[in-house]
Amino acid sequence: MEEKQKTVDQVMLDRMKEIKVETMYDRYQAQLPQCGYGSLALCCRHCNYGPCNIDPFGNGPKKGVCGADANTFAARHYLRMNGAGTACHSDHARAAAHLLVATARGEAPGYRIKDVDKLMMVAECFGVKTKDRKINEIAEEVGEMALMEFGKPYGTLLFLKRAPEARQKIWEKLGIAPRAIDREVTESLHRTGMGGDQDYRNLTKQSMRVALADGWGGCMIATELQDIMFGTPKPVQGRSNLGVMKKDHINIVVHGHEPQLAEAIVLASGDPDVIKATHATGAKGLVIAGLCCTANELLVRHGIPMAGHMTIQEGAIATGVVELMVVDIQCVMQALAETAKHFHTKIVTTLSKAKIDGAEHVEFSDEHALEAAKKIIMMAIDNYKNRDNNKVFIPSSAEPNLIAGFSHETIKYMLGGRFRASYRPLNDNIINGRIRGVVGIAGCTSPRAGACDQNYVNLVRELIANNILVVATGCAAGQCASGGLMIPELKDECGKGLREVCEAVGIPPVLHSGACVDNSRILIACSEMAKEGGLGNDISDLPVAGACLEWMSEKAIAIGQFFVASGIYIVFGMNSPVAGAPDMQRLLTKEMEDLVGARWDFERDLKKIGKMMMDHIEKKRDALGINTAKERKLYDMAERRALERECKPVPGHH
Amino acid sequence: MEEKQKTVDQVMLDRMKEIKVETMYDRYQAQLPQCGYGSLALCCRHCNYGPCNIDPFGNGPKKGVCGADANTFAARHYLRMNGAGTACHSDHARAAAHLLVATARGEAPGYRIKDVDKLMMVAECFGVKTKDRKINEIAEEVGEMALMEFGKPYGTLLFLKRAPEARQKIWEKLGIAPRAIDREVTESLHRTGMGGDQDYRNLTKQSMRVALADGWGGCMIATELQDIMFGTPKPVQGRSNLGVMKKDHINIVVHGHEPQLAEAIVLASGDPDVIKATHATGAKGLVIAGLCCTANELLVRHGIPMAGHMTIQEGAIATGVVELMVVDIQCVMQALAETAKHFHTKIVTTLSKAKIDGAEHVEFSDEHALEAAKKIIMMAIDNYKNRDNNKVFIPSSAEPNLIAGFSHETIKYMLGGRFRASYRPLNDNIINGRIRGVVGIAGCTSPRAGACDQNYVNLVRELIANNILVVATGCAAGQCASGGLMIPELKDECGKGLREVCEAVGIPPVLHSGACVDNSRILIACSEMAKEGGLGNDISDLPVAGACLEWMSEKAIAIGQFFVASGIYIVFGMNSPVAGAPDMQRLLTKEMEDLVGARWDFERDLKKIGKMMMDHIEKKRDALGINTAKERKLYDMAERRALERECKPVPGHH
Repeated sequence: MEEKQKTVDQVMLDRMKEIKVETMYDRYQAQLPQCGYGSLALCCRHCNYGPCNIDPFGNGPKKGVCGADANTFAARHYLRMNGAGTACHSDHARAAAHLLVATARGEAPGYRIKDVDKLMMVAECFGVKTKDRKINEIAEEVGEMALMEFGKPYGTLLFLKRAPEARQKIWEKLGIAPRAIDREVTESLHRTGMGGDQDYRNLTKQSMRVALADGWGGCMIATELQDIMFGTPKPVQGRSNLGVMKKDHINIVVHGHEPQLAEAIVLASGDPDVIKATHATGAKGLVIAGLCCTANELLVRHGIPMAGHMTIQEGAIATGVVELMVVDIQCVMQALAETAKHFHTKIVTTLSKAKIDGAEHVEFSDEHALEAAKKIIMMAIDNYKNRDNNKVFIPSSAEPNLIAGFSHETIKYMLGGRFRASYRPLNDNIINGRIRGVVGIAGCTSPRAGACDQNYVNLVRELIANNILVVATGCAAGQCASGGLMIPELKDECGKGLREVCEAVGIPPVLHSGACVDNSRILIACSEMAKEGGLGNDISDLPVAGACLEWMSEKAIAIGQFFVASGIYIVFGMNSPVAGAPDMQRLLTKEMEDLVGARWDFERDLKKIGKMMMDHIEKKRDALGINTAKERKLYDMAERRALERECKPVPGHH
Repeated sequence: MEEKQKTVDQVMLDRMKEIKVETMYDRYQAQLPQCGYGSLALCCRHCNYGPCNIDPFGNGPKKGVCGADANTFAARHYLRMNGAGTACHSDHARAAAHLLVATARGEAPGYRIKDVDKLMMVAECFGVKTKDRKINEIAEEVGEMALMEFGKPYGTLLFLKRAPEARQKIWEKLGIAPRAIDREVTESLHRTGMGGDQDYRNLTKQSMRVALADGWGGCMIATELQDIMFGTPKPVQGRSNLGVMKKDHINIVVHGHEPQLAEAIVLASGDPDVIKATHATGAKGLVIAGLCCTANELLVRHGIPMAGHMTIQEGAIATGVVELMVVDIQCVMQALAETAKHFHTKIVTTLSKAKIDGAEHVEFSDEHALEAAKKIIMMAIDNYKNRDNNKVFIPSSAEPNLIAGFSHETIKYMLGGRFRASYRPLNDNIINGRIRGVVGIAGCTSPRAGACDQNYVNLVRELIANNILVVATGCAAGQCASGGLMIPELKDECGKGLREVCEAVGIPPVLHSGACVDNSRILIACSEMAKEGGLGNDISDLPVAGACLEWMSEKAIAIGQFFVASGIYIVFGMNSPVAGAPDMQRLLTKEMEDLVGARWDFERDLKKIGKMMMDHIEKKRDALGINTAKERKLYDMAERRALERECKPVPGHH
């Protein structure tokens, strides 16, 4: 496994350069140098006295026209990022809640209640009576209760009580237990308006509150309701990378975030008319492949192949074999419409709230989802004849097998078995030191980190060699999947302790837990670990950490902040979003620990991040008193590479 | 009335320069030249692939890293402005709704239901039963219904049905009838996130929807519920300008937006302990003076004197006689804490959602409002001894009398009388041409327009000379009040027709209708004019227009957009917020007319704006067929000045 071997990302980039199709990497280069004020959060455009800038070198203005200083600039921008990230996940969750109500009422043909156990769990959590009631009645009330979580005038979010009691008390004491989700979003915008909240500490308390509304509200509602309707993930075999698309098949890529679109497309792909029409074209079949979080959703629930993560979206089109890319919302680049012009690919938008200039639009609704899905597939089939075989270019050997689908319930079940599902074995193995701790990797991939497509892969290798169990979501999971890491055989790259656990339990050391909203699964897993006992009594006592190496989306910031506010140390790669305001930077990276028992770090050198998290984990182990005298060994990068050379090659990743 | 005579703004600026106290004008100068990308909306910081800029000259990048183009940049920024503006008014309205519920339950000592007629009107509009019910029961249910307007999962806003039917149909047809207010705010943030909505026309439809949620939701709820609790404005005498503060009195300035704070302060100022403590200091009494929209709220309801509008907030402190400035939220500059350091003035924040680094904080709640208010007043009284008489500087001759308090109900009553309150006489006078039309002026004052403090004053003089009735809110009203325009005697500056109407009805030609949220009064007035008959059947048929000359706040954009989406032609002075994206600019200034029957204009030369609105009004009159052959005369600036010279001087404005 030579590091110099080109990744699929790089192969496609070279290809696109050759055929003169612009990519995000080109556009990133064209933007350099990027605005220093904006990069440092020293720009404010929240009113028309501005735009105002603050000179980071102290020679120019130190305040905006209204007198706001660097801390206020940065804290306001930071709060708007958290608010916007929360708005994304939450509006997604709202769509899931509406769909659950429609499904329960029989008004959404094609959808059904698939996981009754989870429905019952959520019903209990919401205080919905279940005894002697029909499933659909319960589901309807659960859906209605979920909808009220966005707008109820009183009280805090119902899922907050799933957190350890100690954690709930911290939120109450600080006044950051979130009320209705949309209210927190609205208040965040209000407070960041000109002449609103102008105390960076106070603003950042609201950042925590709105982010908690994301994690324990929007994300968790999305995850749980989607599990009810589409099934809670269980271990499932899958494949990943552009190679999942086939030359002799009709290929449809489903891109975006809300699984209801993708689920309908998958369902409609089995329609007899569709099969007949497919065969009539001479194609051998129909491939549905996911991209971005839609891919994660389809993969962890159904093992449907993943074309790749976010940064390969233009590359997917450049294979020349995509008849149609159907998208919903979030992380769908406007550039796709332009990229598609070089090929026969159709870009189809589906939500009235997310159109793209130059794309076709087929409106998608709960009531007519199957019809719309069928129409879209037929458009793809019809477009097959327009494919130009001279433009076909699918990177070879790029289709690693993998195992995904590690919901928190699955982890609990695999660890404890059907009748004693429990986090006890995990806690025990952390206490006895076989597993040093758990790291979550989540979030985005970015052209700012170059096209190596190996940053998460390298980090994971370092972590597992040091007996850290890894849980992955979002595009971080996507990169690991494409990088061939999500296989049980990877245990051979693990340290001795982790290897033993993986062998005993039968899991890979890197657990794919789903999409970005599924970071809520990690919140629940950590809560259960804390409640299980032996590792303190709050999430902040656990030897766990999280990282996003190549953050891009405002959603990533909200996710990072809800983890920190829940007690988990988080490291983001590259740049801090508040770097130009030293007090604000110190609040996030130091003082936040005094408030919520966890803090942020931002680290430009991605290679250092593994060690930072492992140091944190050992510090937590020390505090718990579970670090025996037993020798432990931290591998540095050089040793890790040496270890890699000893390993057998990972199948599918040459 | 020499134009060269210094305005109060200028006097205070000179004074502050002399004593070396920094002002917003200084900070504005220090920010020049302001960032061209930001000014043109060609900057995007919605994700960490950026900041991205688009080169307006076409030599540099035409797209962001994600492929978003200038239209998407501008439309996204524009939607976030509308969302943020809506969030401000709506979060304010939410506070009013919570207070109404608390008042009805007897949990908010000091507050009461003051306008039962309005309560009944809103109850009817909300479908709340009133027969055989106690006032407090009705009020509680109205409050609860109002709270649900922010978060209800289904349906559109209840107040929308107060609009003419033709208007409601347009909103339904376009799909821009707003649902729950907070939902529209959240969806606006969602759609503007990276990879969300990327069609500028579609984004701008959401701008209209969220802005309508502002006008017919947040603003209207705030206005109506505040009227229920604090009284619907009726004509009342008042005074304005820094001269309302007295050398030999203890002076408290109340600044911000939500009237519940100010109402409590006014109430507590009559407390025997307060009176006793005041006299004990040797001061002759206690002055409560309003600033910014708080001033408008207090003035139109109680005739409490107004210290001035937004841009004089630092100047107010620089009089040296302000013992304490108590603030809530919005348009309260962070600079105040710094300005106050030069004097003995205390700055006191009151809301947990709006603190200022360096200010004192006294938490204000519905339950303990009076206690908090008394505590704050006592702090001011206690601070009187620290006043430095050497620093006292109150501009002389700066206290014009005025008449304010023109709610839509008042206008209706004054026009039609008690038993036949109606817009009929107004419509008739528009039809017969005595009044050519009505113009609303609203919104901000800005250092970008210089410190002349005469732009709205000049515009109003031009309009009334041309028989245009003017309705004013916000800081535009504040400037007119301080400029001595809000007096019945001003009729002598009017054209003949308008003068006749003013004399017959007994109103000044410039009607102060309240704070920025009270722009909802103008929506209702226009709706009633359209329903009254003879001037078409929709708001867009009326010979009316609106202007904000010196817009600053995101709220101003939301206000402008809800007026346009309601059918009213709006001109904003200075710069367009989307100037760098020609298609987007064309959408707002041309194509929007095809969608909603009204459009925006942006005009750098403030002197042209009066003529633009009058041309529009005449165009509407032509379309209505009410422009008879009767000679009409448009006065230009020179003729207007000649007219002015003929007029007798306006009392209080030398």
